[in-house]
Parts: sequence; structure tokens; C-alpha cells
Amino acid sequence: MNVILKQAQQAKEASYDLANLSCNIKNNALLNMAESLIHNAASIIEKNQLDMEDAKKEGKSKAFLDRLKLDKSRIELMAEGLKSIAQLPDPIGETIAMWRRPNGLEIGQRRVPLGVIGIIYEARPNVTVDAVGLCLKTGNSAILRGGSDAIYSNRAIIKILSKAAYESGIPQGAFSLIEDTTRESVEFLMKLNGLIDVLIPRGGAELIKNVTQNATIPVIETGMGNCHIYVDSNSRQDMAKDIIVNAKTQRPGVCNAVETLLIDEKIAKDFLPEIASALKEKGVELRGCKKTQKLIDCVPAKDEDWYTEYLDYILAIKIVDGIDSAISHINIYGSGHSEAIITSDYFNAQKFLNEVDAAAVYVNASTRFTDGFEYGFGAEIGISTQKLHARGPMGLEALTTIKYIINGNGQIRN
Amino acid sequence: MNVILKQAQQAKEASYDLANLSCNIKNNALLNMAESLIHNAASIIEKNQLDMEDAKKEGKSKAFLDRLKLDKSRIELMAEGLKSIAQLPDPIGETIAMWRRPNGLEIGQRRVPLGVIGIIYEARPNVTVDAVGLCLKTGNSAILRGGSDAIYSNRAIIKILSKAAYESGIPQGAFSLIEDTTRESVEFLMKLNGLIDVLIPRGGAELIKNVTQNATIPVIETGMGNCHIYVDSNSRQDMAKDIIVNAKTQRPGVCNAVETLLIDEKIAKDFLPEIASALKEKGVELRGCKKTQKLIDCVPAKDEDWYTEYLDYILAIKIVDGIDSAISHINIYGSGHSEAIITSDYFNAQKFLNEVDAAAVYVNASTRFTDGFEYGFGAEIGISTQKLHARGPMGLEALTTIKYIINGNGQIRN
Repeated sequence: MNVILKQAQQAKEASYDLANLSCNIKNNALLNMAESLIHNAASIIEKNQLDMEDAKKEGKSKAFLDRLKLDKSRIELMAEGLKSIAQLPDPIGETIAMWRRPNGLEIGQRRVPLGVIGIIYEARPNVTVDAVGLCLKTGNSAILRGGSDAIYSNRAIIKILSKAAYESGIPQGAFSLIEDTTRESVEFLMKLNGLIDVLIPRGGAELIKNVTQNATIPVIETGMGNCHIYVDSNSRQDMAKDIIVNAKTQRPGVCNAVETLLIDEKIAKDFLPEIASALKEKGVELRGCKKTQKLIDCVPAKDEDWYTEYLDYILAIKIVDGIDSAISHINIYGSGHSEAIITSDYFNAQKFLNEVDAAAVYVNASTRFTDGFEYGFGAEIGISTQKLHARGPMGLEALTTIKYIINGNGQIRN
Repeated sequence: MNVILKQAQQAKEASYDLANLSCNIKNNALLNMAESLIHNAASIIEKNQLDMEDAKKEGKSKAFLDRLKLDKSRIELMAEGLKSIAQLPDPIGETIAMWRRPNGLEIGQRRVPLGVIGIIYEARPNVTVDAVGLCLKTGNSAILRGGSDAIYSNRAIIKILSKAAYESGIPQGAFSLIEDTTRESVEFLMKLNGLIDVLIPRGGAELIKNVTQNATIPVIETGMGNCHIYVDSNSRQDMAKDIIVNAKTQRPGVCNAVETLLIDEKIAKDFLPEIASALKEKGVELRGCKKTQKLIDCVPAKDEDWYTEYLDYILAIKIVDGIDSAISHINIYGSGHSEAIITSDYFNAQKFLNEVDAAAVYVNASTRFTDGFEYGFGAEIGISTQKLHARGPMGLEALTTIKYIINGNGQIRN
């Protein structure tokens, strides 16, 4: 654990310099790092092969292997990611507001980096590049704890990025990889108060739960999305059908895909058979409440279905007696991620926007839009499902905090 | 613990209504609550007597008894506090920004309440009124866990406030007091994820440490302030003297009082004897580094002095070899609260503002100004010493989060 402690101390030390680095130096470093990735693609792929062989030996799933795999085009994509981060405006150093008090004090809110960010993630090596790029752009040091499955790839990537960064004027230790991939290294990292300012876990539900439950450092919780679409009685059914099919099947394995469909009972008889056949055509398994079972052929839903984030071609369906029941169901079972109403009624649209407690609330659009790029942020750190600090898709600003700067001329307090 | 669970569930339930209550109803309730406190002052004082008697029996300090004591004028002050909260602008419902994406989606950021706020505090009964007022104004439910020393007072206050609030249209359960003052009740409260959105501990270092170390709910850390003033070689010494005396002695028991004085060695010989005599005149004990000991009569400082928040008439003094050493000392030993430089040098002023890592960084002013009222926020929840969510003095906005509201007309994701 001494190695990790030392990495954290170096990261803290580097963070003071990083905080005041000019945007030109940071952008130049990002571009050089991108070049270096492409230039060294062969050696990254070579190391990635070692991870792939281990994963195959361990009998990992096809989807797992796909997430782990790096080839030339994927490395180019990672490099493109760094280049596009270089092109984004730098949030650091902006004085958001400054005002003068009656005693003459000038008080300003200036945007500054968080300091040292710990990122705990699993098998995707692209997260390594992404996290380094986003932290560097926002003047933060990064300590990365990737999964053991990608350790060869991550080591190769960090080695290349570090060299390019250092040669571009980035202080040594500004980002580093924890090579100890035991459970103990995560436990240790989560309690380094005073050295690490924030933890961001990126990965599955279990990883995120472990971090939020055990960290003593502040955490930004991301991930879990049990999303709903409610179809109001007064609504365009064609639009509803397109949106539901999109939200369920366009990419079912992601957090902003819909998991439960709520339908007003007044239109269920008309609408349900139609949407059911459209979904079944796409291979979606339907799990319906008792009323739903009477109208369509489906698997009976259990109570736990209302809580479940399937991340799969499965959709729970419940018939409700109007918008109040729909909102109440969402506020009880939802995870506060993305929720949508399909309605043509002005008052119901407003009511849903006001009363649903979630990071993103949609009227007549697919829940799949909850995403930093779709919102126009130009980058995405993740999607926060907590209410503190950041909520919903996080752009670069989520990696910053503020500092009050005060200019006086001798003021003392009475 | 069933009682606490039920209180939390009721608070959550109430929070959905509270979030959409009009500002008029909330303000009217605050005014009625203020009236009711004054009207029932005698019964509050009667119950407070019970707490006072217990505290005296337990041999509590004079300062403790003073914090606990309620009399007519203090109750009037608490009522005034509620009235002034009623007069503040309501942050809830503001749409901070709304933009249109190329696909026609309109995406807005709307300010909404956090939900349910747990406040864990010690013996000051005025915190009870203050916390209820601030949470109510921002549409949040509040669960209060005050210390056992003030339990009679807190019960009386909450009973009076609840009746007035309910009669003014505030939903039942919107705020409540946990009457179980055992350690177990705090432990239980800190882990009610899903029901409580945020915890704010208010009190001494031990209380805050317990909450940040053990809570699984996100916490806003407040309190600890190990603040410094650095006197640069090029500075107005009269101004420096006034500011240092003010920051140390105007109210030594608070978190924004200065605890360590750093002096550039180039002026130490001139300046130290002068400031030392001014501070000693006010009864301040001085603890100096080796170089300081050669110039003035003082207690030798130990390494732990640089870490200590005295909250008392004690000041540590260190002679440093310039601004870089001063900044480095502050970033190592400081608690990231309030830091000041006294300088006439433009570049050193800028350098200090940029490189010191703290919530509030001052040039030529007393650290004592770090305060929500002094900053013009009209209220103060506390002073955050963490970087997530809120940093420095917290006004009403610190008790809010945002929700993305999205108006579409059938958009699906490609």
C-alpha cells in the first residue's frame, strides 16, 4: 500500500501545479498524447493480447471480450477522444461572478479544479484514456484503479500517455495507474482523505455500491438507471410507439434504456397489443402486471420486476389509473435517472416535469438522450444519479469546484 | 429505530409536495412559525429550564450553558431569523439555463430541492429553528437529530413550529425531531440511503468526523478551520496589525479566526515585536517557531501546533523565507477554510489567490469575513470545507440541486 500512498502524495503535489497550468500547455499535451497513442498502437495491441488471452482462459463472455479488446481503429478512436477534449473550452479560471459588498470587499467565485480524482473502474481500457484526458483538461490529478482484466493494456497506455504528457510540460505524477489490482487496493484508496478529493466509480452496480458504502472520501455516484416511460391517455400513439421501441431496443445494455412501461388504463386496450407486437418483433420479452396479462400474451411480472434494471431485451409493463399513479410508481421504484411521459396534454406535461424526482425528465422524447454529448457538453464523465454536486450527465464542469477570491484594502470585521 | 424509519418515510413522502409548494405558502408558514415562537416563548423557556438544570447537574462549562440557554430575547432572535428567511428570494423553480439542440430537443436546467436533509447537531437549540426555516424555504424535508442536552428545548420548539406549519398548509412530516438521542440513532440515520438525500453535521470536530467516516449517504462537511495570515515583505504593517488582531481576537472561538501567523523573514525583526505586543495586550498566547523565539518572548511551537485549530486566545507564529514557503505551509497544514495574505505587491497577491487551495482566499482583509451574511447570501447553512457540491459559506442554493427538464416532439436517438 506504500506505493499507492506515494502515488497519491505525488498526485496531490502535482495538482497544485496543474491547477495553474495554462490552457495552451494542457491542450498541447492532449494533442501530443493522442499522437503518441497512434504512434505506439502496435505495442498497445500487443499488450492487450495478453489481457485477451487471460480473459479467454477464464472463459469470459463474448460481450466482456468485446469490451476489453483494442485494435487499431479503437486506439484511433481513443486518440480522437483526446483531440476533441483539447478542443473544448477550458472551464478553469473563469470567475463566475464577482460583487462588491457595502464595506468595499470584492468577493468573486472562481472555478478551480477539484484537486485529485480517484477513478475506480472495470475492464474497459478506453476509460483509462478518457479519464486521463478529462482530468488533465480540468487541471485535476488522476489516480486510476482499473480492473485486473485490463492490467496489461492499462499499463501500456499509461506508460505512453505519461511520457507524452511529461514531455509536454505536465508535472510528473499528475496521473498514474494503481498496478495492485487486489480488493485491498480499492479499500485503501477509498479512505485516503486529505490526499484524494473525490472518487468516481465507473462500472457495474456492485462496484458502485462497494464504493458508496465504504468510501470515506466524497463520491460521485454514477450508473444505475431504472427508467420509465408513461403513456398518457391523451397522447399520440404513433409517437409513443416509436419512442418506446427506441428507448428499449436502440441499445438495451445502457443505463438510459427504458425498463418499465406505464400505460394509462383508458388507452391500454387499444395501445397495448400494438406496442407489444412492435416490441416482440424486436425480440423483447414482455413482463406484464395482472391487467396487462389480460390484454396481451406476456410473462407475469413479479414485484421485483419493478425494481429491476434489466439492461437487456426485457420490458416490464404496468397499467395505471392515470398520471398520479404513474408518478407515484416512478418515485417509488425509479432510480432517479431518466423518466419520460408521452402526452398531448399541457397540464400533464407540466405536472410530470414538476413532480417526477429524477435527473432527467422528458416530455415526448426517448430516455436514451441522457448523455453528455447529446446535451451538448462535448464530453461526458458519467451520469450522476445522486443529487449532490452534479446530477445527470456530467461535462467538464462536474470536475471543478469553486474558490472564493476576495480583494480587500484593510477590511476588518466589527 | 422503527420510529426513525417512519419519520424518514414521512419526510420523503412530504418532500414531493414540498418541492412544488408555492413560495407564498412557504413564506406565510415561516411568518406564522415566527409568531408562534414568540407567542409560546414562556413554554419554551420552561422546557429549556429542564435542559439547563440537567446540564448544571452534569457540571457542564459556562460556555456550554450559555450556548444552551434560551430567554425571551433569544427566542425573539430565532423568530427574527425565520422572518428574514421569509424575505429572501426563493431559489426553487428557477430554470438556470435552457437551450435547443440541433434535433429540436429543448433542454433546461431547473433548480429543485435536494429532497430530505438530515441535520445532526449538538446543544444549540437555535440550530433547530434555523435548520427548519432554511429547509422549508428551499422545499426540503428536514430530519433533525439534536443532542440529548437540548432535548426538552428541541421538543418544545418542534411542537410549536409543527403546529404553525401544518396550519399554514405545510405537509405533515415535512420536518421532525428524532427523540432518541442515543449514539445508535445517529448510526441508523447515517445509513438511510434512499430516504435521506444529504446529511449536514453541525458541531464539533468529533461529531463531523463520525458522520463523514461512517455515513453511506452523501455528506456536506462543515466546520474545521485552521486559518492562516501571511504577512509579505512588501506590505503595510499597520494594516497587517489591524487585520491580525481582528482575525485572532474579534471572536476566537469560531472557524474563520486565524490560528497561525506566517511572516516573511525580511520584515520579521521589525514587525514581530510590534504585532506580538498588540496581541499580548489582548491576552493572546503566542507559540513561535525557533526563529520567532529569537525575536520575541513566546512559547516554543511544536509540530502539532501547525495543525491545531485552537479556537482560543492562542496564535502560532512561523517565520518563512518568502511567499512560496508560506503557500506551501498553508497547503500542507491548512484545512482549506480561509487564508489571507497582507501584501502591497500585485504579483504576490495574484500568486496567493491562484495557488492557495482553500474555500476563501483573501488579499488584505480579515479571515473573519468568511460567512454567508458577510458575503451577502442573506442566510448561512454552514461553511463547507469540502470541494463537492458547495465550498465555503453556504446560502440557500447549497440546499438545492438541479433537474434536467426536456421538451421534445417525438425525438428518438439514432
